[in-house]
Amino acid sequence: MFKKILIANRGEIAVRIIRACRELGVRTVAVFSQPDRDALHAQIADEAICIGPAATKDSYNNIAAILSACEITGAEALHPGFGFLSENAAFARMCGRCGVTFIGPKPESIELMGDKATAKETMKKAGVPVVPGSDGVVESLEDAKAVAKEIGYPVMVKASAGGGGRGIRFVGSEAELEGAFTAAKQEALTFFANGDVYIEKFIVGPRHIEVQILADRFGNVVHLGERDCSMQRRNQKVLEESPSPAPFMTGELRERMGQAACAAAKACGYENAGTVEFLVDEQGNFYFMEMNTRVQVEHPVSELVSGVDIVRRQILIAAGHKLPYTQADIQLKGHAIECRINAENPALGFRPCPGTIEALHMPGGPGVRIDSAIYQGYTITPYYDSMIAKLIVYAPTRKEAILKMRWALAEFLVEGVDTNIEFQLNLVKDPDFEAGSFDIGFLDRKNFAHQ
Amino acid sequence: MFKKILIANRGEIAVRIIRACRELGVRTVAVFSQPDRDALHAQIADEAICIGPAATKDSYNNIAAILSACEITGAEALHPGFGFLSENAAFARMCGRCGVTFIGPKPESIELMGDKATAKETMKKAGVPVVPGSDGVVESLEDAKAVAKEIGYPVMVKASAGGGGRGIRFVGSEAELEGAFTAAKQEALTFFANGDVYIEKFIVGPRHIEVQILADRFGNVVHLGERDCSMQRRNQKVLEESPSPAPFMTGELRERMGQAACAAAKACGYENAGTVEFLVDEQGNFYFMEMNTRVQVEHPVSELVSGVDIVRRQILIAAGHKLPYTQADIQLKGHAIECRINAENPALGFRPCPGTIEALHMPGGPGVRIDSAIYQGYTITPYYDSMIAKLIVYAPTRKEAILKMRWALAEFLVEGVDTNIEFQLNLVKDPDFEAGSFDIGFLDRKNFAHQ
Repeated sequence: MFKKILIANRGEIAVRIIRACRELGVRTVAVFSQPDRDALHAQIADEAICIGPAATKDSYNNIAAILSACEITGAEALHPGFGFLSENAAFARMCGRCGVTFIGPKPESIELMGDKATAKETMKKAGVPVVPGSDGVVESLEDAKAVAKEIGYPVMVKASAGGGGRGIRFVGSEAELEGAFTAAKQEALTFFANGDVYIEKFIVGPRHIEVQILADRFGNVVHLGERDCSMQRRNQKVLEESPSPAPFMTGELRERMGQAACAAAKACGYENAGTVEFLVDEQGNFYFMEMNTRVQVEHPVSELVSGVDIVRRQILIAAGHKLPYTQADIQLKGHAIECRINAENPALGFRPCPGTIEALHMPGGPGVRIDSAIYQGYTITPYYDSMIAKLIVYAPTRKEAILKMRWALAEFLVEGVDTNIEFQLNLVKDPDFEAGSFDIGFLDRKNFAHQ
Repeated sequence: MFKKILIANRGEIAVRIIRACRELGVRTVAVFSQPDRDALHAQIADEAICIGPAATKDSYNNIAAILSACEITGAEALHPGFGFLSENAAFARMCGRCGVTFIGPKPESIELMGDKATAKETMKKAGVPVVPGSDGVVESLEDAKAVAKEIGYPVMVKASAGGGGRGIRFVGSEAELEGAFTAAKQEALTFFANGDVYIEKFIVGPRHIEVQILADRFGNVVHLGERDCSMQRRNQKVLEESPSPAPFMTGELRERMGQAACAAAKACGYENAGTVEFLVDEQGNFYFMEMNTRVQVEHPVSELVSGVDIVRRQILIAAGHKLPYTQADIQLKGHAIECRINAENPALGFRPCPGTIEALHMPGGPGVRIDSAIYQGYTITPYYDSMIAKLIVYAPTRKEAILKMRWALAEFLVEGVDTNIEFQLNLVKDPDFEAGSFDIGFLDRKNFAHQ
């Protein structure tokens, strides 16, 4: 086992990793930016080193400063957390060259999954379902018709060089295809000086469902079931739960998605913890979206239902340990929900609200877990993510977990900065949420910020 | 289900009960003494009523004030928590007469278990092992010899009217019996004007192991395994865990103790949650000590290993619900440890330390549960128990739970008042504790307060 690990991150995930290290008897090195001098992660680590000023490029994304900190402190391994440098293949490679074990997958896996086209291609070869569409550019209207007919309407015509919503057209039926095809090509030419378009199936009312996997260096892969992350605001996850609610999710679908996720991991020689994200349509067809090659914000819900400590396991895998269980040993039980608590004002367009926490009371008791890095008197700076805590509850059933989350949110008190606690409370009181009836457009259709 | 419950208690257990009520959709009424105006339980309940000045006889033990509070607020049921009026049969009876459901056993069960002699007699009849001894007074030395020979040495000769350590003699072998018998009788005569003595087996190096039971009004009884509460300082529990550590505890012993506990509950027509306390000798023989007819401070460790919410179940049982599981459904898994965090100074003879909490950071993350009623800025008054929080950890194995407790205690920060956190840390770092090698004399032999 490593003697010392440097945590190249801040906030609650840095605290989470330090705690996992403690439990393994590993000494910890925190790195912090100048304004993070009083941050909890810097205070509770065995050692703490300032790596630069506020701007992330100068501190938490400053590769030279972080690797120097490893050298100075003698850290043998580095945990990147999420965000910052966690999915930077060049950084992972440089860690290796400096003799520091990067706690995560091999740089090649990060690279492969970082390139969306290559990732999709690799998945398709591995038999993992991807969003159906043309194999690359569609040259003619006739070809477009043939492809669309094969994959079924509705489809999207998309500019190959596209981005920002330009050069994209929705096509509900064949009658609309000619117009859309021509318009998309024209717009693509105008905006990107490249008229190439391709066709992809339009997934109606999809859910975002992801599968947590763990892979060791001996080729063993297990999954810990799924997380439903359909509760998103502008592609930012707000609330996550595991398992995905019935009746939409079934044991059979879970089994198939789990197998696909494990196949995805095996296809890229994956090692360590990772998440395979899928879009799932109303009929329960699932399509590979992307693989996140790191621990995720929402990992606690999987920990609670599986009993597996994912961060601990990341460290053990990086230290060369074999997975001590097979898929059959993983028993999923109960229901977990996580609410991200952000210092932001939902009524003002979710504007971040830095400031000093004047009073703080966090709920506790049975089935309540708090992952946070705040304390009363702490000043939230404007430089980083606005998430200040994760409130996670666990109960035998989803219904009980929702009831628990309601009182836990109602009891959560933060004074001095605005938060989204009331917003989250409106969400978990919503009858459609309670019924498990939602898709990724749910939060954008509802108006929980103004209730 | 009840619409409104009054919680006749304070501190963390009142908060614990309020949270359970919330989850069941039940409105809550807190009662508080004048100095408890800012206490958390009074702040988070739906309603709060002042029931008198600081002295417990005028407030938390003030039956008239509490029943008036039920009447005024329309509370249909009352949860007594632990301590205060929780084992007062007369109070339970008066609740019934006032039409308020007492969330606990019937007054007759409280009464029966409150009288130690009757309780022992009842248990003996029910086939529950009690400490072997003479049936009442031993008249002659010859009788004493016969009894001692039958139950086996060492034995204790005890004055029937005794107390305070007077009129008690330890007898290691028959050679010592005559002298001890005569001396005990003489001392009993001198101190209590009553020379009657009886004989009881001396339990060598016992552990305090108790079994949590749940009983509904339909005669169904289950147990949730045992808690090892051998870590005591002057008969005050300091740290509790479940299960009791191997190799001392075995599946077979657990099974037998569980059955005995269920038999004890059935023998007194018990209803609701209760705990049967046993002394267990080095050979694994167990003897009934007493039954606590209420929820206990250490109930969370049983909740964590069994997955059963005991306080929730107390309320459901009182509302007439049948137990939804049989013994076979109760699956015990993992290991839980609770450390009681007290505002006291171990170096000064554990003197209570009231005062204002100037800074507070409580640990969190996976497997960490906090039951407390404190917050930064809260002033601990000198009037009540010095326990300010319970830190409970849960992990797959005892070894991991101990490692988790170590970092959790190390991270726990309280400024402004002295606490026993360092004492607890010394305890959980002790090699004998780690080896599971201890009895109820352990803490009195060690010197964790001065390390």
